[in-house]
Amino acid sequence: MPVVALLTDFGSQDHYVGAMKGAILTVCPEASLVDLTHEIEAHDVTAGALALASAFRDFPPATVFVAVVDPGVGSPRRALALEAGGYRFVGPDNGILSLVMAEAEGAQAVHRIANAALLRPAVSATFHARDVFGPVAAHLARGLPIAEVGPRIDDPVRLAQPALREVGPGEWEATVVHVDRFGNLITNLFGRDLDRILAAAERDLRDVVVVVEGEILPLARTYADVPEGEGCALLGSSGRLEVAVHRGSAARMLGAAGGSPVRVRAVGTVL
Amino acid sequence: MPVVALLTDFGSQDHYVGAMKGAILTVCPEASLVDLTHEIEAHDVTAGALALASAFRDFPPATVFVAVVDPGVGSPRRALALEAGGYRFVGPDNGILSLVMAEAEGAQAVHRIANAALLRPAVSATFHARDVFGPVAAHLARGLPIAEVGPRIDDPVRLAQPALREVGPGEWEATVVHVDRFGNLITNLFGRDLDRILAAAERDLRDVVVVVEGEILPLARTYADVPEGEGCALLGSSGRLEVAVHRGSAARMLGAAGGSPVRVRAVGTVL
Amino acid sequence: MPVVALLTDFGSQDHYVGAMKGAILTVCPEASLVDLTHEIEAHDVTAGALALASAFRDFPPATVFVAVVDPGVGSPRRALALEAGGYRFVGPDNGILSLVMAEAEGAQAVHRIANAALLRPAVSATFHARDVFGPVAAHLARGLPIAEVGPRIDDPVRLAQPALREVGPGEWEATVVHVDRFGNLITNLFGRDLDRILAAAERDLRDVVVVVEGEILPLARTYADVPEGEGCALLGSSGRLEVAVHRGSAARMLGAAGGSPVRVRAVGTVL
Repeated sequence: MPVVALLTDFGSQDHYVGAMKGAILTVCPEASLVDLTHEIEAHDVTAGALALASAFRDFPPATVFVAVVDPGVGSPRRALALEAGGYRFVGPDNGILSLVMAEAEGAQAVHRIANAALLRPAVSATFHARDVFGPVAAHLARGLPIAEVGPRIDDPVRLAQPALREVGPGEWEATVVHVDRFGNLITNLFGRDLDRILAAAERDLRDVVVVVEGEILPLARTYADVPEGEGCALLGSSGRLEVAVHRGSAARMLGAAGGSPVRVRAVGTVL
Repeated sequence: MPVVALLTDFGSQDHYVGAMKGAILTVCPEASLVDLTHEIEAHDVTAGALALASAFRDFPPATVFVAVVDPGVGSPRRALALEAGGYRFVGPDNGILSLVMAEAEGAQAVHRIANAALLRPAVSATFHARDVFGPVAAHLARGLPIAEVGPRIDDPVRLAQPALREVGPGEWEATVVHVDRFGNLITNLFGRDLDRILAAAERDLRDVVVVVEGEILPLARTYADVPEGEGCALLGSSGRLEVAVHRGSAARMLGAAGGSPVRVRAVGTVL
Repeated sequence: MPVVALLTDFGSQDHYVGAMKGAILTVCPEASLVDLTHEIEAHDVTAGALALASAFRDFPPATVFVAVVDPGVGSPRRALALEAGGYRFVGPDNGILSLVMAEAEGAQAVHRIANAALLRPAVSATFHARDVFGPVAAHLARGLPIAEVGPRIDDPVRLAQPALREVGPGEWEATVVHVDRFGNLITNLFGRDLDRILAAAERDLRDVVVVVEGEILPLARTYADVPEGEGCALLGSSGRLEVAVHRGSAARMLGAAGGSPVRVRAVGTVL
């Protein structure tokens, strides 16, 4: 059964996710539908892009992802289909697919959805998840080659990402890009960035400390490496540095939030 | 795979939706289960009826819907199965299916669930979603003719709906019946009502303005037709007039809620 | 299609549940995935154990359950697979499976997950739902005999449960162990306990009253047996005594919560 995974900002109190699923099953009745999340903050394209990029590698090859955070629905913004990393993605051309583009390995192709035969007979001006993206994803799940959706383009919208900033010898400033349900602070620093920082400073992982809101935290392997109620940093399950408190909420205990700076010191110096 | 779509007021923090799904899969293991929503306000039959009527047409033909908002569970209220518009529906006889009855096209048949062989061996007094509605839906999904569930009836409970009210020449008052996740105000006025109003007033869509909480708003095609932060009215994805703010919440910015009046003026006059 | 049912404390705003499902479908593409709930309070193992034990019997035989409330992830706590009641369960060895162990009928076997060939190639230190429990569940769903996951053990962690306490002749004190979405107060007293109390007191169901926060309530069959807005006790759909208010919230109207005492009097005496 082909897998179609869904990410939106539709929430769960309305019928919108259900209607989109109905539209997908109308085209591809054998699809196995999986919810990635529908609780992206309304209109928060960046948060949607991040969740999608954090999860796509965990799915079976050939999974089709539908990502719809789409405040510009009905405007002339383009609709896209992307092939990357052995997966397919559909969504509006507002950057929601751009972190996947930045992270996926191997060849990529971006197409503008233009083949009206793939869409719902009457396309509304306000619900392209149901009328455009869902049906196109369903056709891809049934095996349609991506080139059939429309012409290839080379200028998709890409989101600006907060950059890592060198703030001293062997010291870098990262940024909290997401706070998860447990209060873990997910940053824009990947394991490969840390490797690079350590190599440049001729240090290893034991020398790293992380500073958040004035607190100096050790780098650990997992939450349980520190006592209950104490904080640590670690390389999380999506490959990003995150700050956590064992059986507690780092966001609450440290007073940090999205946008908060997180300093990584490879020098092992004490303040 | 037969599709079974579910709508309840069970929320997602308890095991109730899961238990209902387990009961369905026990009877029909090949069912493809889709959640319409489980976040209907507890006991709000009208909201459940509205969500069901807004979404059913988006599903593949022969989909079976289970709709359970059922404060009278265990009382003598009847249990129903409905065939309408090429779909099947099961739910309590409290009006939750009545907006589908009002909106579906073509022949309809309502049956009272009476065939005990279709139910769970031990039917609880408090969880008919698991013990009655789920199993009956699963049998229908497997192909059981609806007449097998029990005798046909002709007096199902029907919800009273707020009526459109003519308040002046070419001016009608509609009512907000739902506020969605984005703060859009969904009304009880359909596109066909607007056509009728315009024909009677010898006007066209360009002449329409909508008044909500003292604000005069244009009729637009989509949210992006007005500048960010400004309001408009439009015919939404379920065919109903709705009031929206581009990248904002109409409910919050206009101070409107369920029950708020929305006036539609076909005369194009300035106040 | 084999059914895999999921219970976690991951919530729905992050990508974690989706990633776990992706991992399961990678191993067992034909799995039918059902969410039991993902809204268990973060780290509340007891609440997870209770929801799992309340629902598992409603699923088809051979269903595989994945239950992950796992504050000790990455620590030396063991990972378990359990066969009980004709079902299979996987989860951390922190008691989350122990209420199923206490309630399931028939033979049981608990195994420690030790077969590395079943896990994701790179096991993270913080996301065993995706890297350990999901893949093992998927292998079980494909038909792997449970003995293949690892050696049998006989000392799984078991949660201490609040005990029923005899507080007078024919009078017992139970405890609220869960408050559901509707405000119903679910207790630790089962129908079989009530039978035993009544037999000892030589009374029958008509003699029972229940006292909660000073209110004396009748034992009813269903919510609708009492007038709207009034309270009652009843044997709920999972076999436990619960306290409810017809079309209202018992939690709110009685001021009760998790841990509140509920007295059951079989003597029919008036206070």
